[in-house]
Amino acid sequence: MTTQDLIRELREPADSKIVLLVADGLGGLPLEPGGLTELESARTPNLDACVQEGVCGLSIPVLPGIAPGSGPGHLALFGYDPLQYRIGRGILEALGINFPIGPEDVAIRGNFCTLDGQGRITDRRAGRPSQEQNLAAVERLRRIQLPGVELFVEPVREHRFVLVLRGTGLGDQVNDTDPQAVGVAPLTAQGADPASQKTAELINQFTAAARQVLADCAPLNGVTLRGAARRPAIPAFTEVYGLKAAALAVYPMYKGLARLVGMDVLDAGASLQEQIATLGRVWKEYDFFFLHYKYTDSTGEDGNFAAKVQMIEQLDAAIPQIRALRPDVLIVTGDHSTPSKLRSHSWHPVPTLLLADTCRPDEATKFGERDCLRGGLGQFPAQYLMLLAMAHARRLGKYGA
Amino acid sequence: MTTQDLIRELREPADSKIVLLVADGLGGLPLEPGGLTELESARTPNLDACVQEGVCGLSIPVLPGIAPGSGPGHLALFGYDPLQYRIGRGILEALGINFPIGPEDVAIRGNFCTLDGQGRITDRRAGRPSQEQNLAAVERLRRIQLPGVELFVEPVREHRFVLVLRGTGLGDQVNDTDPQAVGVAPLTAQGADPASQKTAELINQFTAAARQVLADCAPLNGVTLRGAARRPAIPAFTEVYGLKAAALAVYPMYKGLARLVGMDVLDAGASLQEQIATLGRVWKEYDFFFLHYKYTDSTGEDGNFAAKVQMIEQLDAAIPQIRALRPDVLIVTGDHSTPSKLRSHSWHPVPTLLLADTCRPDEATKFGERDCLRGGLGQFPAQYLMLLAMAHARRLGKYGA
Repeated sequence: MTTQDLIRELREPADSKIVLLVADGLGGLPLEPGGLTELESARTPNLDACVQEGVCGLSIPVLPGIAPGSGPGHLALFGYDPLQYRIGRGILEALGINFPIGPEDVAIRGNFCTLDGQGRITDRRAGRPSQEQNLAAVERLRRIQLPGVELFVEPVREHRFVLVLRGTGLGDQVNDTDPQAVGVAPLTAQGADPASQKTAELINQFTAAARQVLADCAPLNGVTLRGAARRPAIPAFTEVYGLKAAALAVYPMYKGLARLVGMDVLDAGASLQEQIATLGRVWKEYDFFFLHYKYTDSTGEDGNFAAKVQMIEQLDAAIPQIRALRPDVLIVTGDHSTPSKLRSHSWHPVPTLLLADTCRPDEATKFGERDCLRGGLGQFPAQYLMLLAMAHARRLGKYGA
Repeated sequence: MTTQDLIRELREPADSKIVLLVADGLGGLPLEPGGLTELESARTPNLDACVQEGVCGLSIPVLPGIAPGSGPGHLALFGYDPLQYRIGRGILEALGINFPIGPEDVAIRGNFCTLDGQGRITDRRAGRPSQEQNLAAVERLRRIQLPGVELFVEPVREHRFVLVLRGTGLGDQVNDTDPQAVGVAPLTAQGADPASQKTAELINQFTAAARQVLADCAPLNGVTLRGAARRPAIPAFTEVYGLKAAALAVYPMYKGLARLVGMDVLDAGASLQEQIATLGRVWKEYDFFFLHYKYTDSTGEDGNFAAKVQMIEQLDAAIPQIRALRPDVLIVTGDHSTPSKLRSHSWHPVPTLLLADTCRPDEATKFGERDCLRGGLGQFPAQYLMLLAMAHARRLGKYGA
């Protein structure tokens, strides 16, 4: 029995509201031995008050030692086993540009590359073209037609684009055509099963057609394709939890992830202030609200400790406005850690707080990694966070008599 | 490999004795923010001494956020995965009246109801009859005979009774006949497979026969039947652990749960004092003793914080008598939390202590939820508690060379 089966069996209607505030990459590390982390350094009186009234702990997104991408990190927070449900790279790229992926679509990451007269790759990134060059080449690719499928070509950045094949019976077990080397031709795509072979043949036809339509576009005169993927069959959020869910995110990737699990993706503006204004406006219409805050991650990725501290303090300042709406359950966490010291996603457990009137007191008094170690939630798999949210929202009945 | 397989492989004979004292619904919550839980409020010098000499922690009965019933709560404490082994409602009702359920029996919960002249339900609980009315109607039902099976009808309380079908090849995938509404006739039972269809036909015959024998018993002139279940195929306690196990419980439900896993259910009297006297009397005859103490749960269910505190203090007073028997391992825990604030079973982790001369010291000094958070057992799935008991009882060999 999966966790989803259990929730479907036990869930009960209630009038309660849950806010899941995801501060992307929240967890950190000290820069120097004996120092404080970004979260411990930040002045966070409002988050600290939540910790004192609620319960805290550390969530483990996938497994100890595993640094997750945004996809598995969010799937776990939404209550899905990130090892069971995998989001392929093509799908993630398509989500990142807010492309509305259909259930049978195959999404593929594309790279423009430079080919010599013999069709051998001389530059795998086509000289990192400008956005104008990328758009012009994408326009050429859009002329390509293939039998039995609808094609979508969408620009990303530099040498990258997304190809979506829309048809029926297309598999996604196809090798990448990027040989990861120069001096050789792009590889031929092959499918691991008949449905994937159908996709592979379309990829090979597209690659050949691209050489023709891009013939005079050097250095963007060839393409490689990789990460072919269909969307995973994730049971919808509303169907599993019985929650009417709204996503209030600024960046396309997180809107896409929320759409993938069936949340309503609202036009929430371009800043935390606008997101919170939207939250207030739609408060009566939904049971569950996913708010995504990007800047704790991007400053961490930049290796900018001070800026990450500042972004945490800006988040803290917004907490009273959220609490003023009186959510029954307020959760503040991250999808993974992004220590500025490492300039990347990391495997370190993620500080998490849950505020509800059914919390058992613990001895944590401040929202920080060390306090969370003493918190009542302990260290726990992130995929169980939604069980706790549902329990504290009084939306789960008893298991067994 | 299940935990049971692992234990069978590693277990070693020893002369040690284990006491598992289950204070039902032990965990709690403060009534007010900043307050103490029931266990933290209670004066428990003897339990505190156990915590100081032993190790403590918090057990999670099923999964974070899941409030368990008594069935899954106890199965986990006995070392079985409560998501793998499920005890159906009919079986639990039969256990609750101490009915000796056979391995092929189907147990079904019955309700007396009131039918009008057209056979439509006018009262789903037959006016909540007295025990005398219930017994008289049960006597009538006992006249019913059906081909190929032996029937048992046993009174419960008010409008409730238990029907047990004893035969061979009877399935339990049968719908309830209670329509959960008045103004309509009871539903017809249908089986999801051939064996269950056999059960469904017996249920339908019984329902028809009941109308005849109860014809002049209005308002108890009909029945509905629900929760048909066979006992789960749980590997027996002695076979798995190699422990000769005795159950010393007062209430039938807990005797039934112990019998379900193959413990010897002793006549242990009607109070904790009598249970402990029985414990002393049979001490030499068994290796494992399950003592069940109900009143921490029932006071919690009543929402009576002060009474729950008092019941905890009474339990504490009995600890020296148990320790005087010198068990090699003494465990005090609960099958779930029952905070008086919530008046119900809850999902909060359960305070647990283990006392043996092989405990590693921790910094907990008092038996309470906050101290248990700092305990050496950490937060752990309740189903692993028996592994710890076996280890500290020096009854488990090394895994692998």
